[in-house]
Amino acid sequence: MAGRDAKDAPKASACVDGERLWARLMELASFGATAGGGVRRLALSREEWAARAKLIEWARPIGLEPSVDPASNLFLRLPGADPGLAPLLIGSHLDSQPTGGKFDGAYGVVAALEALEAIRALALTPRRPIELAIWMNEEGARFAPGMMGSAAFAGLRGLEEIKSVRDRAGVSVGEALAALGEAEAALPRRPLGFKAAGFVEAHIEQGVTLQNEGLDIGVVTGIQGKRTFRVEVTGMESHAGASSRAQRRDALVSAIAIVRALHAAMWDEEDLVRFTIGMFTVSPNAPSVVPGRVIFSIDLRHDDADTIRRLGDAIAEICQAARGACDVTVRELLYDAPLEFPDAIRRLIGKTASGLGLAWREMPSPAGHDARYLHSVCPTGMIFIPCRDGISHNEAEEINPIHATAGARVLADVAFALAEAKAFAEV
Amino acid sequence: MAGRDAKDAPKASACVDGERLWARLMELASFGATAGGGVRRLALSREEWAARAKLIEWARPIGLEPSVDPASNLFLRLPGADPGLAPLLIGSHLDSQPTGGKFDGAYGVVAALEALEAIRALALTPRRPIELAIWMNEEGARFAPGMMGSAAFAGLRGLEEIKSVRDRAGVSVGEALAALGEAEAALPRRPLGFKAAGFVEAHIEQGVTLQNEGLDIGVVTGIQGKRTFRVEVTGMESHAGASSRAQRRDALVSAIAIVRALHAAMWDEEDLVRFTIGMFTVSPNAPSVVPGRVIFSIDLRHDDADTIRRLGDAIAEICQAARGACDVTVRELLYDAPLEFPDAIRRLIGKTASGLGLAWREMPSPAGHDARYLHSVCPTGMIFIPCRDGISHNEAEEINPIHATAGARVLADVAFALAEAKAFAEV
Repeated sequence: MAGRDAKDAPKASACVDGERLWARLMELASFGATAGGGVRRLALSREEWAARAKLIEWARPIGLEPSVDPASNLFLRLPGADPGLAPLLIGSHLDSQPTGGKFDGAYGVVAALEALEAIRALALTPRRPIELAIWMNEEGARFAPGMMGSAAFAGLRGLEEIKSVRDRAGVSVGEALAALGEAEAALPRRPLGFKAAGFVEAHIEQGVTLQNEGLDIGVVTGIQGKRTFRVEVTGMESHAGASSRAQRRDALVSAIAIVRALHAAMWDEEDLVRFTIGMFTVSPNAPSVVPGRVIFSIDLRHDDADTIRRLGDAIAEICQAARGACDVTVRELLYDAPLEFPDAIRRLIGKTASGLGLAWREMPSPAGHDARYLHSVCPTGMIFIPCRDGISHNEAEEINPIHATAGARVLADVAFALAEAKAFAEV
Repeated sequence: MAGRDAKDAPKASACVDGERLWARLMELASFGATAGGGVRRLALSREEWAARAKLIEWARPIGLEPSVDPASNLFLRLPGADPGLAPLLIGSHLDSQPTGGKFDGAYGVVAALEALEAIRALALTPRRPIELAIWMNEEGARFAPGMMGSAAFAGLRGLEEIKSVRDRAGVSVGEALAALGEAEAALPRRPLGFKAAGFVEAHIEQGVTLQNEGLDIGVVTGIQGKRTFRVEVTGMESHAGASSRAQRRDALVSAIAIVRALHAAMWDEEDLVRFTIGMFTVSPNAPSVVPGRVIFSIDLRHDDADTIRRLGDAIAEICQAARGACDVTVRELLYDAPLEFPDAIRRLIGKTASGLGLAWREMPSPAGHDARYLHSVCPTGMIFIPCRDGISHNEAEEINPIHATAGARVLADVAFALAEAKAFAEV
């Protein structure tokens, strides 16, 4: 049995139903389910529309009031005793990578729904409203970069700029938002970036720390810094059989030399630098044509602000030095410095986990989350649960139902405590 | 003025109309025209259908009889005096690379049409029929590998095997052939691989030899050897922010190491090896996912049979040695040894060019052509004309109308001579 806190008052965590939570996770995974057991639920796709509709369907019997903002962030509101107070937000996202798993994002949404259902079951109305927030386009797989909805909510990116981003098929975010807006025309509208009292996001760890140490809960101390770049290498198309090596301006040859130079420059003995080229697109991509163009992405992350500044600032020069016979342009898309969540919320999460008899530790988040941007407008925290072998952004992503339940129990009590608090420093 | 031969008999070459030839080249380039001034006319696409229909339209007033075989090779027949004799074939292909030029393939087709129109204008019926042959899918850009129609005609690839090849959208050659067959249902059918007396193909050089030496005509001695491979590198998708370098099985990192090892192994001081990676596709190709798979093509060409055997045979082992943390499989798709065209046809082309006052040289073809496969079933030759700066498989492909006319004049006289000959050794 999990422990109770000293006061022995009824706790929302006691009303968390692990079986209902798991059944909902599995049902949600059917929206965009892949043959490989994963999920393809790209941002603003039909599959995501359907998943949002399912959440609204689940929310209604609990008495949660749905609404959407101009960025198609979706909110499901549990009313508070004092409707004049800014709501506490809890939640995550429903979009996935192209071959993603069942739990990245979806776990935080379903756990938040379960927390609200548990609080409702207590028949206690919290002082503040609590809203389940489902942020638009966290992954950035279809429309890059991600965390668009939370960035717009936090006022860090302009809605018009976001709307102009296009996917590979040429569809803009603006067009995709308009289509979803039509499908959700019946929902009440909210202004973008309304005042929030705080935000708590539950998420799978996407690493092996909790698993390796046999822990149930990670209290997230902060999020590592992230910089992303788009590199375009331009050569000249020519005939594979006719053009000599000396004549060629082969964009693939130059791109590979650039990538090798970047790998060498980013290598660190401690293996703390996260350097990834995930997107690498060759044109015209025909077997007997010497490539005329390569476009690739760079995703660079590090916990240390100085290190990520230094490494990221070196990228353009490294690309130029290694470009060979081709031309190269480097554009920075995103620069998010490392951040730390406030102590008060971290302490509350740890205390709550202890009270429930769960084993936990503090740890940084290696991945970016919507919590990054909410952090800039309200006190924010994150709760991690273990995921098997750290596998994520992969169809094989897996979690243990016991951990799923534990995370939702912590979230329920933390959310209730924050919604009751006059000021978060007191919790 | 071009010279005449000793006999001073009327020559088909005298009836070649350079302006008509050029106008037809430009009109043909409108089928699949790109914004960049090139052509996107993939094999068995609607754009190619339309180009074929235009050829048939041009052929009818000349009295050429259209027919198609089961591989959708299209034939336009000028009847001969002795209908029992096997026809001489002349022609090339109408499909292009995804961002191809106006002349690769199209020149040989339009020059052959002009040659037939010139022969018709002589009002002399040649002994043998002469047929303009338009081969299906020479480029192999949509359905790999290319030269499918000529390979099927020559009995070197089975029609059923060819039909099972699919493009990236999942459409099979069989489905594409059926659709074109329906569009061309009114055309008479020919058996696959009927007996041909010979084949002559005019083509742009796709190299700089003729331009650099100020020549009008290349008499092609043969075609360099070609081997193609498909390499698949399999790692494991993981999260760009969470997975450490030590944990990753990054398919792009392994693929790049493999490509570097291949480049090193294929490097030759003389710059005679043609080694190209034209297709390189990363999955899932998302900026924040460590790539789980890379598939790339290898196109290896060389004039020397021993060299191409030795280099090609080493590829699988090089890939295995450099694969790092990932798995790799290597599959050979094509192995065409170097070949030489028969002396008699080469001599005839050179003699004809000299008779027309054109400057020419013998030279090997760096690129593959349908002539490669026809060579295995009948005496075959090729006529090259210069192309600007050797640029081909590129929207900027360009030729001089004077060279276009010269090549068609040589082709017209060569075709008439071969169609008159009892045996090709006598010409």
